[in-house]
Amino acid sequence: MRFFSDNAAPACPAVMAALQDANQLDTAYDGDQWSARIDAAISDLFETEAVGIWVTTGTAANGLALSAMCPPWGSILCHRFAHIEQDEAGAPGFYAHGAKLTLLDGPGAKVASQAIDDAMAAIRKDVHQVQPACLSVTNATEYGLAYGRNEMAALGEAAKRHKLKFHVDGARFANAVVSTGCSPAELTWKAGVDALSFGFIKNGGMSAELLVLFDTALADTIRVMKKRAGHLQSKGRFAAAQILAMLENETWLDNARAANIAATVLAEACGERLVYPVEANELFVKMTPDEAAAIRAQGFDFYDWAAGEVRLVTSWDQDMGAVEKLAEAIRRL
Amino acid sequence: MRFFSDNAAPACPAVMAALQDANQLDTAYDGDQWSARIDAAISDLFETEAVGIWVTTGTAANGLALSAMCPPWGSILCHRFAHIEQDEAGAPGFYAHGAKLTLLDGPGAKVASQAIDDAMAAIRKDVHQVQPACLSVTNATEYGLAYGRNEMAALGEAAKRHKLKFHVDGARFANAVVSTGCSPAELTWKAGVDALSFGFIKNGGMSAELLVLFDTALADTIRVMKKRAGHLQSKGRFAAAQILAMLENETWLDNARAANIAATVLAEACGERLVYPVEANELFVKMTPDEAAAIRAQGFDFYDWAAGEVRLVTSWDQDMGAVEKLAEAIRRL
Amino acid sequence: MRFFSDNAAPACPAVMAALQDANQLDTAYDGDQWSARIDAAISDLFETEAVGIWVTTGTAANGLALSAMCPPWGSILCHRFAHIEQDEAGAPGFYAHGAKLTLLDGPGAKVASQAIDDAMAAIRKDVHQVQPACLSVTNATEYGLAYGRNEMAALGEAAKRHKLKFHVDGARFANAVVSTGCSPAELTWKAGVDALSFGFIKNGGMSAELLVLFDTALADTIRVMKKRAGHLQSKGRFAAAQILAMLENETWLDNARAANIAATVLAEACGERLVYPVEANELFVKMTPDEAAAIRAQGFDFYDWAAGEVRLVTSWDQDMGAVEKLAEAIRRL
Amino acid sequence: MRFFSDNAAPACPAVMAALQDANQLDTAYDGDQWSARIDAAISDLFETEAVGIWVTTGTAANGLALSAMCPPWGSILCHRFAHIEQDEAGAPGFYAHGAKLTLLDGPGAKVASQAIDDAMAAIRKDVHQVQPACLSVTNATEYGLAYGRNEMAALGEAAKRHKLKFHVDGARFANAVVSTGCSPAELTWKAGVDALSFGFIKNGGMSAELLVLFDTALADTIRVMKKRAGHLQSKGRFAAAQILAMLENETWLDNARAANIAATVLAEACGERLVYPVEANELFVKMTPDEAAAIRAQGFDFYDWAAGEVRLVTSWDQDMGAVEKLAEAIRRL
Repeated sequence: MRFFSDNAAPACPAVMAALQDANQLDTAYDGDQWSARIDAAISDLFETEAVGIWVTTGTAANGLALSAMCPPWGSILCHRFAHIEQDEAGAPGFYAHGAKLTLLDGPGAKVASQAIDDAMAAIRKDVHQVQPACLSVTNATEYGLAYGRNEMAALGEAAKRHKLKFHVDGARFANAVVSTGCSPAELTWKAGVDALSFGFIKNGGMSAELLVLFDTALADTIRVMKKRAGHLQSKGRFAAAQILAMLENETWLDNARAANIAATVLAEACGERLVYPVEANELFVKMTPDEAAAIRAQGFDFYDWAAGEVRLVTSWDQDMGAVEKLAEAIRRL
Repeated sequence: MRFFSDNAAPACPAVMAALQDANQLDTAYDGDQWSARIDAAISDLFETEAVGIWVTTGTAANGLALSAMCPPWGSILCHRFAHIEQDEAGAPGFYAHGAKLTLLDGPGAKVASQAIDDAMAAIRKDVHQVQPACLSVTNATEYGLAYGRNEMAALGEAAKRHKLKFHVDGARFANAVVSTGCSPAELTWKAGVDALSFGFIKNGGMSAELLVLFDTALADTIRVMKKRAGHLQSKGRFAAAQILAMLENETWLDNARAANIAATVLAEACGERLVYPVEANELFVKMTPDEAAAIRAQGFDFYDWAAGEVRLVTSWDQDMGAVEKLAEAIRRL
Repeated sequence: MRFFSDNAAPACPAVMAALQDANQLDTAYDGDQWSARIDAAISDLFETEAVGIWVTTGTAANGLALSAMCPPWGSILCHRFAHIEQDEAGAPGFYAHGAKLTLLDGPGAKVASQAIDDAMAAIRKDVHQVQPACLSVTNATEYGLAYGRNEMAALGEAAKRHKLKFHVDGARFANAVVSTGCSPAELTWKAGVDALSFGFIKNGGMSAELLVLFDTALADTIRVMKKRAGHLQSKGRFAAAQILAMLENETWLDNARAANIAATVLAEACGERLVYPVEANELFVKMTPDEAAAIRAQGFDFYDWAAGEVRLVTSWDQDMGAVEKLAEAIRRL
Repeated sequence: MRFFSDNAAPACPAVMAALQDANQLDTAYDGDQWSARIDAAISDLFETEAVGIWVTTGTAANGLALSAMCPPWGSILCHRFAHIEQDEAGAPGFYAHGAKLTLLDGPGAKVASQAIDDAMAAIRKDVHQVQPACLSVTNATEYGLAYGRNEMAALGEAAKRHKLKFHVDGARFANAVVSTGCSPAELTWKAGVDALSFGFIKNGGMSAELLVLFDTALADTIRVMKKRAGHLQSKGRFAAAQILAMLENETWLDNARAANIAATVLAEACGERLVYPVEANELFVKMTPDEAAAIRAQGFDFYDWAAGEVRLVTSWDQDMGAVEKLAEAIRRL
C-alpha cells in the first residue's frame, strides 16, 4: 500500500483512451488537431484568453516560463523550499541563462507579500546587485499548503508593486483548486499571474504538463525556447491529447478530489502529529523511527522526511480501503 | 496518401501495447523496472557495455550528448546541413553553454574525413580561435545517405587523430543499419563512436528516443544535465517501455525495413530524377512545379524542398498500395 | 622595424599624460568626473545624443553590444572573416548566452546588402531555425577595406528591412573615417547603426575602448552586463581619461592619419602584389616565402598570412624612414 | 578627508613609473616581456610553482577562477555576504554558465568548516539537487576579518573532505597577510587553496589584478575563458608591469601596512562602537545618524552601512593627519 509519491501512480483511463484515439496520422510537432484545440480549452477553463503550451515535465514548464520572464542578468524571487530551488538540478539557472534565485523564507514553504517587500528593500538599485525580475510561488506548496484567492491577490499586488512578472508552479494546482474552492481564474490571472505551470502528471496524466500563459506576449519566446530546449516532440498529438482528456469531463478535478479526500481521512487520524495543515494531497507527520517502522511493517510504503517526520502522499487512484487501514494504524500508535 | 514526414506516422502496435503494460504502479523518474532493463538490452544489441538514457526528442538526445562532449568554449564539427545546425533552434549552443558549430561541406550532407582534416588545419591552436572538441555526423544523413562501416571507421580515425569526441545523430539509424547491412556495433563503437542518438519515434515510437553512450564515463554528467534540462520524466516507465518494445522481436528493424523498401520502390520509379542515391527512407526528386501539382492532384502529399525539387519520405506503416500508385504516377510524368 | 601589429605600438603621449592627470582621488567605478564627461564628448563628435561605455578590449565592446542586441535564441549576421567569428574565442556565444553567428561571404571581408537578403531568404520563419536578430560588420574590415557612407546606408537599409539591430565593430574605425573622408555620423547612426565598438587601443590608446550607443535604450542592459562580465573597473577614471584624451585635439584622427599614410606609401610600392585595395592601415601582399625571407633579412618584421601572402600593418607611431626603406625593399624584389 | 573606499585612492608611484617603463614596442596580448615574468615572480613570492594570469577586475578574476572550478550544473559554496554573491551582478552565474551559489552563514562574513559540513550534509547526492563543486572564501572578509593559517587549513581540509576545489577572493589579500603575519604560502596552497584572486587595485594599483593558480592544471581553461570573456588586453604589458611593480620592493606589503595601521588607529578610537574586530582596512562602526552627521560636518566622508552603522575604509595613501583627526572626532562623540 503505497503512499510515497503521486508520481508512482499509473495514468488514468481517460488518458490511456486519449492516446489510443490520437494514434493516427497527423501533422508533426504541434501542428496537429489536438494541439490546435488546447488554447480554446484552456481559455474556456480560465475564463480568459490564454495560450497553452504542452511539455513533458514540470521542470521544463517552469524553466521555459522563467526563461521568458527573467533576463540572464536578473533574479527570480522564490521560497527557499521551492521545487525550482531544491529539486530541479539548477534548471532555472540553465533555462534563464545564468539568472539567479533570490530565496525567501516563510512557514510551510509559503511566500508572504511582506517577505517580497523585505527582499526588495534589501536590494540596492545599482548594477552591482542582481535585480529581481520575477516572482515564482508554488500552489499547492511543497509542504501541501494551498494559497487562496486573497493570498494570491496579495502576492500579485506585491509583484506589481515591484514590477515583477508572476509565475506559479502548479504541479499540484488541481489539488489547490479543489482544496480552496477557488476558481482557476481566481488563483491565477485575476490575481495577476502571468504564467502557470499546470501539472497533470501527478494527477493521473502520463507524460504531459501544460504551461499556461495569461500574458500571451510571452508565447513567441517560449515556443522558440521550447524547441531549443528539445521539448517540441515530433508527435505532439500524444501530449496534447492527454491534456484535453484531463480537462474534459472535469477529470482533472475528480482526480484531485479523490487524492485530497484520501489525504483528509489521513489528516484526521494524524491529528496533533501533523506538521502543517493538510490542504492538498501531502501530509508531513511527526513519527519516531520506531513508529514509522511499525507502520511499514503493516505494509505501508512512504518516505522519511526530516528527523522524526515522515511524508505521506495520496494519489488520484488511492485505494480508500488502504487509506482507512493506514488511518487506523496511525491512530493505534 | 502521405509522403511528407515519418513524424506524421502513428505509433506501432508494439509500442501501444507496451504503454498499456507499463501503466502500473512503479517508482518515479528512472527508478522503475523498465528503465532498469535498458542498459542490458542496449549492451546486448550493440555487443558491448553501453549506457542507454531515454529522452523524448532527438534534439534533447543530441543536446545532452554534446553538452558532455564539448566544453562551453569549444566547438562541434558538423555538416552545414546537419539537423543540429539547421533544425534544432540553436539547441547545441544552449545545451553546450555557448559552444559553437564549425560547419563542414560535402555532397548529400555527408562528412568526409578529409573535410575534418582540412577544417582542423585551418584552425590556429591559440586562445583566439575556438578549438573543436567533438565531431557529430548524422546516419542516415539529412539527405537520406547512409554511412557504411568503412566510412564510419574513417571518420572515427579522423576524430581520434584530432582528439575529438565522436557523436552520431541517428534519428534514422535504423534505416541506415538496414540499408548498409552493417551491425549496430560496426556503425558505432567499433568505428570509435562515443555516443549515439538512437531514434525510435520516426520509426514507429510515440515519444521516446535513446541516447546510447559507448563512452560510459559520459553518463554521470548527462544524467545531471538531463534533469537540469527538464527531461527526466516523472513517470519514466512509459518512455523506457517504448524503447524496450521497439528492441524486442526486432521491431525497430522490421519497421525500418518496411520504410526502406517503400523508398526503394519509389526510387526505381524516379530513376534519373533522384538528386541523391536512396539509402534510407527519404527521396529528393527533381520535379517541376507543374509535375508536383499533377502528382498532388492524384492525392499524394509531400513537401517541396528546393526549387524544382520535392522530398518524399516513407514510414514504417507505409501502405504499399499507395506506394505503387505513387511510383506509377511518377513514371507517367 | 616592425610591421606586424598595431597592437604592438606604445600608447601615445596624450594618453600617458591623461593617466597622470587622472591619478587623483575620485569616486570608484564609473562615478568619476572623467566618466561623466564621456557622453557629452561622444555626442558632440557624432552630432547626436549617444551613450559611451568604456571597456578594456574590443572583444568586450563587441560582446556587450551583441548581448543587448541579440537574444540567446537568436543569431548575428556577420562575415565569415569577421573578428567576432575568427578571433574572439567564441565571445559572442558567451556574451549572448548561446546565440549563434550566421556567416556571410563577400570579398575583402566585406558584407553586401545582397548577402544579407540572401541569407534572410534562406531562413524559414519557424521555431526550428535560428532567427537573425542583429547584423554586425567591421569598418575598416579585417582585410583593410573601408565602407563609405553609401555602403553603410545600404547595409542599414537591409538591417531595417529585416528588422535587425545594426552593430559596427570599429577596432579601426578611425582609419575608416580618415580613409573615406566620411563623418563619424555618416558611418554610423545616419546609416542606421545602433552601436559602434569604437577602437582606440590600436590607434594609440593603452587600455580603453568605447562602446558607443546610438540606440540609447540599450544602455541599461549593457551597464548591467558590463558589471556582470567583470568589465566595470574599480578605478574607471583611468579608462575614461584615455578616451577623452584621444578625442581631444583630434588625436584619434591624427594618429589614424599617420598610420594610413604609412600604409599608402607601402601600397604604392606593392602595386600588383596587393590582394586588396589599401583603405586603412593593413596591407595583404603577395610574396613568395623566399621574397618574404629576403625582406625579413633586412630587419623588417611582419606576419605570414595565407600561402604566398604576408600581412603588413602600420601604426600611429610608424617611423616614416622605416616605411620608405620597406617600400624600397619591396620595389627591389 | 575620505574614508569611503579604497577604490577611490590613486595609483601608487611605483605603478605609475612602471606604466612609463612599459610604454614601448612589444608583442601584443600576453606575449610581452612583462607578462613573461609574472609566473616566476609569483612562484617566488608563494614559494611554489604557480601561474599568474592578469586581469582588470576582481570580478573577472573570481569569475574566471570559478568558471574552471565549477561545471555549469554545479554550485559554489560561499558566504551569504561574499562579494561574489552580493556585489558582482551575478558574474559567477555568467562565467560558470548557470552554476549556482550555495550560501553559508557565519559572523563577520566568515565561513567556518562546520558550516561547510552542515551544508554538504543537507544536500542529497542525487540528480535533483545541485552538487557543490567548489568553495570560495574572501580573505580579508567583506567585514574586514582575516583568516589565519589555522583557519585556512581547516577550510582546506573541509574542501578536501567534500571534494571541493578551493578559491580565495583576495581583493584585500595584502591586508590579510599583513594583519595575520602569515606568509602568502600559508594562507593559500599550504592550506589547500587552488586559486587566489590576488587584489592590487584597492592596494595602490591602477587597473590590474592577478589570478594566481596553485592548481596549474586550471590554466589552460582559464586562458581560453579569459579571451572569451574579453579580458585578454591587446597591450597586456601595461597590466603585467603594474603587477610586477607592486611585487617588487614589497610595495604591496608596504601599501597594505599603511592602510592597516590607519585602520588600527581608528579602531582604538572606536572602541565599543566596533561591530567586528578590525583585522584589515575596514571598520564597521555603530553610530547614530546624528553622530554620523556630526562627523561628516567636520569634513569626513564615509558610507552609511546598516541602520545605526557606518563603514570606514582606509587606503594605502591615507593621510595620517586626517586619520588622527577622525579618531579624535570619534572619541569626542
